[in-house]
Amino acid sequence: MDAIEREWYRRRASSITPVAHFFGILSIILLLVWLLHYRGGLGLDSDNPYRILNVHIFLMFFGFIFFAGQAITLGIIGVYAAFKYHYKANVTNMYSLHSWIGLGTFIVYGIQWFFGFVTFWLPRPGATRARLAPWHVCFGRALLYFAICTAETGLMQLFTILKLASSSEGRLINFTGLAILIFGISVDLVIALSHYY
Amino acid sequence: MDAIEREWYRRRASSITPVAHFFGILSIILLLVWLLHYRGGLGLDSDNPYRILNVHIFLMFFGFIFFAGQAITLGIIGVYAAFKYHYKANVTNMYSLHSWIGLGTFIVYGIQWFFGFVTFWLPRPGATRARLAPWHVCFGRALLYFAICTAETGLMQLFTILKLASSSEGRLINFTGLAILIFGISVDLVIALSHYY
Repeated sequence: MDAIEREWYRRRASSITPVAHFFGILSIILLLVWLLHYRGGLGLDSDNPYRILNVHIFLMFFGFIFFAGQAITLGIIGVYAAFKYHYKANVTNMYSLHSWIGLGTFIVYGIQWFFGFVTFWLPRPGATRARLAPWHVCFGRALLYFAICTAETGLMQLFTILKLASSSEGRLINFTGLAILIFGISVDLVIALSHYY
Repeated sequence: MDAIEREWYRRRASSITPVAHFFGILSIILLLVWLLHYRGGLGLDSDNPYRILNVHIFLMFFGFIFFAGQAITLGIIGVYAAFKYHYKANVTNMYSLHSWIGLGTFIVYGIQWFFGFVTFWLPRPGATRARLAPWHVCFGRALLYFAICTAETGLMQLFTILKLASSSEGRLINFTGLAILIFGISVDLVIALSHYY
C-alpha cells in the first residue's frame, strides 16, 4: 500500500472519530433523559431501590464504556450500586446473563490492565512491545465486545422486567441501546482502519 | 515487520480458528440442549407458540451467526417464525431492543451483500477492490457486532419473561450467551490478527 493510500485511510479513521464521540455523547444524553425523566433520577443513598439501580446503569455506561481511562473506579462503584440495589430490593445476585457478561468484562479488563502494565509501563525492549501490541489490541477489542453486550443485555433485562413494551419509555431505551451499539461499532471501525496506515 | 514475525502471526491466527469453531459448535450444542430438553423442541407448524419461537431462536443463531454464508435464507425463515410466534401468542411486533437490533442486523447484512456483489462479484479493477476491501471488512465486523448483540438481548429477554432466575435452565441460557459472545470475540480476533500478515 503506498503513502497516498495510507494517508487516505488515516484521514478516514480520523473522520470516524467524531462519529464515535457523537454516538457516545448521544448515548449519555438518551440515558440521562431516561433515568431523570422516567425513572426518578439517581441516588446511591436513596430509600427507593430504583434510584440506586439508576446509579448502576449510569455509571456502568458513562464510567465503563465512555471513559475507559477512569473506568475501573467508576466501574467498581457501579457494581457496588448493583449489589446494593439487589440487597434493598431483595433480588438474588449474579443469576442473569447480564451479570455474567458484566463479571466477564471485569475479568477481561483485569487481564488487559495487568498485561498492559507489565508490557508497556515497566521498561521493556521495543521489539517485545511491538510483538505484544497486537494481543493488547485484541484484548481491548474483546473488552469492547463484553462492555457493549453487558449494556445491551442490561437494558433488555430492565425493559422486560418493567414491562415497557410499546411505551415511549421503552422506545427511548431501544434508541439508547442502538446508540450504544453504533458507538461500539464506530470505535471498532477506527481501530480496524488504523491497521491500514 | 519481517517475514518470520508475519509467519508467526499467520500461525497464531490459524490456531485461533479452531477456538472459534469450538465455541461456535459449543453454542449450538448448548442451544439444542436448552430447546429440546427444557423448551419442548422445535416445530414451525406446532400449536404451541413456544415451539415456533424455538425455531426462531435456533435458526437465528445456527443460520445467521454460524453459517453466515447460507445466512440469508435461514435468517428469513427465522424472522418469519418470530412474527408467526407473535401472531399465535398475541404479542406485539417490533417493540423490543432485541427486535430493533435484529432488524439492524438485516439492514447491515443487506448493505454488505449489495456492496460485496457490486465490488467483488462484478468485474472490477484490482486497485478498486483493494481500496474497498477494508470497508467490506469493517461492515463484516459491524454485522458480527449486530448479530452477537441480537443473540444476547434475545436470550436476556426470554430469560426474564420466563422468570428463569436461579434455575438450571437459566444457567444453561447464560452459558449459551457466554459461548456466543466468546465465539464472536474469537472470530473478531482471527480477523484482527490477519491484518498483521
